[in-house]
Amino acid sequence: MADTAPFDRSGSLVEHLNIAPSGSGPLDGTTFTVKDNIDVAGHKTSYGSPAWRDAHPAPRHNALCVDQMLAAGARCVGKAVADEFTYSLDGESQFFGTPRNAKAPDRIPGGSSSGSAASVANGLADFSICTDSGGSIRVPASLCGLWGIRPSLHRISEAGVLPFMPSVSTVGLLAARFDHLEAATRVALRSRPNKKAPLKRLLVLSEAMEIADETVREQATSKLGKIADRTGLSPEPILLSQLLGEDIPLSDCNTRALRNLQTAEFQNTVGSWIETNRPGLGFTFSMAYGNVQSFDRIAALDSIMRCEQLFELINAALTPGIVICFPTTPVIAPLKGSLSTLDAVMDFYDRTMTITAFAGVGRLPEISAPLLTVDGCPVGLSFAAGHYQDEFLLAAVHEMVG
Amino acid sequence: MADTAPFDRSGSLVEHLNIAPSGSGPLDGTTFTVKDNIDVAGHKTSYGSPAWRDAHPAPRHNALCVDQMLAAGARCVGKAVADEFTYSLDGESQFFGTPRNAKAPDRIPGGSSSGSAASVANGLADFSICTDSGGSIRVPASLCGLWGIRPSLHRISEAGVLPFMPSVSTVGLLAARFDHLEAATRVALRSRPNKKAPLKRLLVLSEAMEIADETVREQATSKLGKIADRTGLSPEPILLSQLLGEDIPLSDCNTRALRNLQTAEFQNTVGSWIETNRPGLGFTFSMAYGNVQSFDRIAALDSIMRCEQLFELINAALTPGIVICFPTTPVIAPLKGSLSTLDAVMDFYDRTMTITAFAGVGRLPEISAPLLTVDGCPVGLSFAAGHYQDEFLLAAVHEMVG
Repeated sequence: MADTAPFDRSGSLVEHLNIAPSGSGPLDGTTFTVKDNIDVAGHKTSYGSPAWRDAHPAPRHNALCVDQMLAAGARCVGKAVADEFTYSLDGESQFFGTPRNAKAPDRIPGGSSSGSAASVANGLADFSICTDSGGSIRVPASLCGLWGIRPSLHRISEAGVLPFMPSVSTVGLLAARFDHLEAATRVALRSRPNKKAPLKRLLVLSEAMEIADETVREQATSKLGKIADRTGLSPEPILLSQLLGEDIPLSDCNTRALRNLQTAEFQNTVGSWIETNRPGLGFTFSMAYGNVQSFDRIAALDSIMRCEQLFELINAALTPGIVICFPTTPVIAPLKGSLSTLDAVMDFYDRTMTITAFAGVGRLPEISAPLLTVDGCPVGLSFAAGHYQDEFLLAAVHEMVG
Repeated sequence: MADTAPFDRSGSLVEHLNIAPSGSGPLDGTTFTVKDNIDVAGHKTSYGSPAWRDAHPAPRHNALCVDQMLAAGARCVGKAVADEFTYSLDGESQFFGTPRNAKAPDRIPGGSSSGSAASVANGLADFSICTDSGGSIRVPASLCGLWGIRPSLHRISEAGVLPFMPSVSTVGLLAARFDHLEAATRVALRSRPNKKAPLKRLLVLSEAMEIADETVREQATSKLGKIADRTGLSPEPILLSQLLGEDIPLSDCNTRALRNLQTAEFQNTVGSWIETNRPGLGFTFSMAYGNVQSFDRIAALDSIMRCEQLFELINAALTPGIVICFPTTPVIAPLKGSLSTLDAVMDFYDRTMTITAFAGVGRLPEISAPLLTVDGCPVGLSFAAGHYQDEFLLAAVHEMVG
């Protein structure tokens, strides 16, 4: 293993780094990058925004999750491009460019952890530490053909991570190999190594399958057949309403719950800073931010209550031993530059977030596995489990497809 | 109910406010104050530090928890004094004074939610929204004779609350009456009103009783007898090692686990800001901050792993139906100015945090009830339950002592 990463020709990094491990452990010999909303001591954190970067001094300490990786033997080789204020799922930054989707170079990498995904997919690092609020790890994992985990909400310390949406945002990881994802995640989760649970049932979230393109659905069904052969489990299709015992469509998780909590919290964090400082904003972010500015947080408090109720219902159903499966995204990566019309943006975001909001509102651990290929492009198949069942989920995914 | 609070003669407030409710609901006719590390739109948030206040613009939005209270019918009547950077348990601010402990005026109110507690105890408001990391709600509740709740970690949104210790800090409430505490807490928790669970066992944390002054212990034992008469439950003394099935003393929760996580996270948030900006600091905070500066975060990563293990063990034991009881603080409020020697500070902090770290590391909901009186001064009796069992705990406390 070289002491430094290869030179970045993929547009993944904002900065090459070479920070030696501070200790030795399960990550000896591995390398990692850090999404540019997570602090590395002495290096400015841009949050995907040149204006933010220029207005804030460099942090004095590494984020705690970065220290965890260094102490476990990993070497930090760079800071990775993020979408502006991490408020996007597409990975086309007006300021920092579009990191190369290694397996589909004419397509977007997905965001907001675009550089994290590209740095791993292009061989610059074994894994990347990043964040996910509405899908920012899971979407680039799916579109770039990587392993990605959004752990249970707040399982990993957010000390040294820029506040984004405090009730939603979560630190997680991307990796090209499952063994790297598993090892680095276990370090971050601070797990006891011997923790295990038996896999009993494999549910399939029917509405997520229906939302997906037919080609994605066919691939997912085929893969589920292979998992059934390998494990002896019969995949059980289930509607959200059947899972919860209440008449709630999957789309509620996004449109009537999580989306409004996200917007209200974003008003408090980045919104307040923008209103006060009036920084230069990118075109795409400006469009999205218009909706944030006009959002009525008081009217949305009922949605925030619904988030809590959905959390309770989902976790009453997802008892230990149960895994629920669905396509990570409904589509392969859109072509670069194709998200330029409102219709195209709406179609990509609405369908994608209908799926990603399920684990978001459930505060569930979700692992996206690079198992599907449609038209030569990757799509992820996701597995989720109950809140705080991260270690069970890692073991179950290892058993099914690892 | 008057439209404004009485004029503050207790030193509780940094600012009188009169913000009308935005809606109507279970908090109609009530008033509340807001700890000065929680945003109120258009008013500077000081974090207990004049330097911080002067360096930061006023927020553009209320914290989400403030909006929740206003929408449920409560009127906001002021911002309440907090200890410098909320990094203290005593409530004697060099900058904002020592808010009056209404029931023991020659004694400290406790901190860091000193003004929140004093505003309620001195009749300026029905309840206060505040925060607790190491005991900042529970300690002033105990020392001022109030009801206080530190909910399960992150149950209440932290959007608009200054980041302090991201894996530890929690929004909670103080009130003079249990019905106010319960109603406001249920609004903040976004609970379904019909949620209930039966109370099955009442444990008593033996080491916390042993740490307490003999007079506090006697009062607590007497009160437990009355609870037994009322509920028919037999209080069961239990050591932490018996509860967990592993040989772990209670003091480990603080000294070998939570304290180091708190210090590492404080380095990332306030510490990084102080190192960069070199603001004027108060004497007491400066002394405490010296330990933060010299802290070796890498060496403490094992303690952070221990936090996760203690969380798992404690919550495997505290299944639904179980409440565990202990004195909130081991002592009544120290006399004002008495925490001026290192021995006095160490004795107060070490004994107090040995108890408060139990719910901290367990991420447990804890309610401090104003049930004990020693030498004419109040002391709290605390009740805790498993993580996310906040609604059960509220109902159980209502049944036992509400």
